[in-house]
Amino acid sequence: MNPAPLSGLYAPSLSLVTDLYQLTMAYGYWQQGMQDREAVFHLYFRKAPFQGGYAVAAGLALAVDWMENFSFSEEDLKYLGSLRGSKGAALFPAEFLHYLRELKFTCNVEAIPEGTVVFGNEPLLRVQGPLLQAQLLETALLTIVNFQTLIATKAARIREAAGPQDQILEFGLRRAQGFDGGLGASRAAYLGGVDATSNVLAGQRYGIPVRGTHAHSWVMAFEDEPTAFAAYAKAFPDDSVFLVDTYDTLEGVRHAIKIAREMRANGHELGGIRLDSGDLAYLSREARALLDEAGFPKTRIVASNDLEENLITSLKLQGARIDTWGIGTQLVTAYNQAALGGVYKLAALRKADDSGWDFTLKLSEQLIKTSIPGILQVRRYTNEKGQPRADMLYNTAEPLPEQLTLVDPFDPTRRRPVRSEASFKELLEPVFRAGKRVLELPTLAESRAHAQREVQSLDPSIRRFLNPHVYPVGLEESLNTFRTNLILEKRPQRPA
Amino acid sequence: MNPAPLSGLYAPSLSLVTDLYQLTMAYGYWQQGMQDREAVFHLYFRKAPFQGGYAVAAGLALAVDWMENFSFSEEDLKYLGSLRGSKGAALFPAEFLHYLRELKFTCNVEAIPEGTVVFGNEPLLRVQGPLLQAQLLETALLTIVNFQTLIATKAARIREAAGPQDQILEFGLRRAQGFDGGLGASRAAYLGGVDATSNVLAGQRYGIPVRGTHAHSWVMAFEDEPTAFAAYAKAFPDDSVFLVDTYDTLEGVRHAIKIAREMRANGHELGGIRLDSGDLAYLSREARALLDEAGFPKTRIVASNDLEENLITSLKLQGARIDTWGIGTQLVTAYNQAALGGVYKLAALRKADDSGWDFTLKLSEQLIKTSIPGILQVRRYTNEKGQPRADMLYNTAEPLPEQLTLVDPFDPTRRRPVRSEASFKELLEPVFRAGKRVLELPTLAESRAHAQREVQSLDPSIRRFLNPHVYPVGLEESLNTFRTNLILEKRPQRPA
Repeated sequence: MNPAPLSGLYAPSLSLVTDLYQLTMAYGYWQQGMQDREAVFHLYFRKAPFQGGYAVAAGLALAVDWMENFSFSEEDLKYLGSLRGSKGAALFPAEFLHYLRELKFTCNVEAIPEGTVVFGNEPLLRVQGPLLQAQLLETALLTIVNFQTLIATKAARIREAAGPQDQILEFGLRRAQGFDGGLGASRAAYLGGVDATSNVLAGQRYGIPVRGTHAHSWVMAFEDEPTAFAAYAKAFPDDSVFLVDTYDTLEGVRHAIKIAREMRANGHELGGIRLDSGDLAYLSREARALLDEAGFPKTRIVASNDLEENLITSLKLQGARIDTWGIGTQLVTAYNQAALGGVYKLAALRKADDSGWDFTLKLSEQLIKTSIPGILQVRRYTNEKGQPRADMLYNTAEPLPEQLTLVDPFDPTRRRPVRSEASFKELLEPVFRAGKRVLELPTLAESRAHAQREVQSLDPSIRRFLNPHVYPVGLEESLNTFRTNLILEKRPQRPA
Repeated sequence: MNPAPLSGLYAPSLSLVTDLYQLTMAYGYWQQGMQDREAVFHLYFRKAPFQGGYAVAAGLALAVDWMENFSFSEEDLKYLGSLRGSKGAALFPAEFLHYLRELKFTCNVEAIPEGTVVFGNEPLLRVQGPLLQAQLLETALLTIVNFQTLIATKAARIREAAGPQDQILEFGLRRAQGFDGGLGASRAAYLGGVDATSNVLAGQRYGIPVRGTHAHSWVMAFEDEPTAFAAYAKAFPDDSVFLVDTYDTLEGVRHAIKIAREMRANGHELGGIRLDSGDLAYLSREARALLDEAGFPKTRIVASNDLEENLITSLKLQGARIDTWGIGTQLVTAYNQAALGGVYKLAALRKADDSGWDFTLKLSEQLIKTSIPGILQVRRYTNEKGQPRADMLYNTAEPLPEQLTLVDPFDPTRRRPVRSEASFKELLEPVFRAGKRVLELPTLAESRAHAQREVQSLDPSIRRFLNPHVYPVGLEESLNTFRTNLILEKRPQRPA
């Protein structure tokens, strides 16, 4: 077998980006005549990543794109038809494959807009529609939203550490988990607060500003460092950043200054220098002093080398004179937590006789892993400045009581009544109605601006890295009572 | 801007999967008339991942595919032509874009076959060709080989822990870093020793066996667990694995046995049960006892829940009765080390007057980060059983001395002479000659078989997880001397 050409990786269909069990379950539902039973699934994570106090929702535009293109191609069906069970018979009968061929996406989808800050247990997406379809969406929606949200959150944390003035460049493609691990990371990182990327495809596909310096190989390809710098300056007289650590960092800074003087004599200014190794605190201070002394106070100092939010914080505390941060591996792979554990859980199923809803629950020994039944909405209460104060999950399929009370789902003794005059907004917005998109998606730049406003609206105690304050997310009291009763009903009551 | 359709993600061109600086350097080389200077780059990592003793080389077939498709499309060139510098002028002149339009891949490439065990500082790929082209390959080659090698190595470790008899299923797509983070991980995991994947696209594209069970939602969609199991058994009478922990694990096992009896009465056998939470050691022992007692000693026990090699080892030590391992997040993201730090370094450049080679070096304060100059080959010495004993890096551009001696590049007092009769093989094989592929690529299954033989050929002391024995990789003595002299020449000698 020849390797599949990467260039055709995603064409012509994406519907096989799924786990086999979604298709085996789909067949089972179809065989049982349950394929069109109306179901509700929620996509949510349980804990914000990086031991942080919040996450930045991301991935919706990609998920929408995927859902809009949801269909099985002939090539997909041919492959599925080729699968065999252990006894050698076809895993899927031809009638079922024909059903898949005709399948049209008809779900209702609600989602929290990209860039919104979100917390554990809050549905980022709610899918309501035929059981078979809603089930088939699971894997791809999780793959997209888990990774995008993870990286957008990491980027927001790096922005928090760098502060609003510094530039942050994402440089991670070469260490990314595959080509669209890199492409997706560039997108989410920009959404979360990074200024630019080195990833040219991300620039082309998403309109993200692209930036770059040069590699060590550039310097090594010339007889000496000043010659290499001068050649680069000739190519990019107004856009040069010299990498100064190929042989000796401070010697490199002196060479950069020498060439910067020649550039200035010709009416150009050196943009910056880049440090890529060694003690960045010390070297940046020394480099700043050399540059300032030589009359280049505006030449920027870019630093790179496995940087992340904690190292940036530490460098700033040490008085590092870095104003541009090049972030690679740690950002694009979310190195210290490489996955967000988002899940997609069935929460309601229309009764077989269509007489109403069965609300469903996945039990677990751990309360945090027990799901929340209902057709949920997230209501965010805000103070007079519009800052988030508390979120309430409630079941839209049941009437809300007059007096609302939030109950901590993990400690029901923690409750807080809601003032009737409190301002709020509902976070889940309609995206699809019967398979047709009803939401005009914002541009990536708009989502990025939204994310920055959102993160800034959080109290600093929630944004801090170490032991952040826990933002209150409660269940509306009647939902909590309903859930508790359902847990008691489902769990076998063994005598002690 | 509308989101770019994922379905067209990689079409029609992949050449923008690169860092901007590769293109700015390419322009600079072109402007200097250096575009065709013959250059040699090595792609290598410095340390095996996961604090392990070895890595499994992977990614070559994907890299070959990418190189064979290397060219700039009109759409790519249009985007590059749209880029502006800080003063608003075009970043790249039209003449250079025309040059890229006409560019044909003409490099020589050597590589170590996929599945071969490799060690720090050994070139997995060597690219020799026009400086501009060889530079432009850097990012994509690193993205591919870093991730594939990382995941293949993780899979080999998981195989080591599970042993040769157990089945290992890769289930990680939903936690993968993007769609081809998932697709690439499925490929590399299979190459490294996993038996099957849940990822249907990986099954279709790469011929990997696909496997699956069902989700909690299947159970929740029925009135009770036995009904759900019976319905699944109806759909897949000879291929059912029941997930038993939706409500209560051991109760779930009893329900599975009940349905298994009904299946047997109809001439079918339950394939297995799956445990996905709780104390897997305890629950698997209890489940095994229940199944055995009920007359189902061959029903497999599948376990999943954030498993990796150390947990598998621990579960086995605890007497867990698990024979099939479902591995997700920890494998597909290489969670405990989410990136391999592979680099691509210029090692030789033809002199401007074509009178020979300049061998080049990237210095660093740390010797481990200082590159190795030359046009390198890796020679692997083996014992009479064909087991690897030591690897020697040498410069193919210089004659080898009669008596060969290996020198540890990080401790030159550690040396070992090579017996003249020692058996060896050369690991780097020709892949491209002047841009034409000369290597018939093995199938993925062949590479997988090669990987298993390779890992098994290593001494167990090198394969162990904790403080593995360090496999000897030395520089041929004259190369070491040459490198040492080059370091001394390049490094500024500051008085103490």
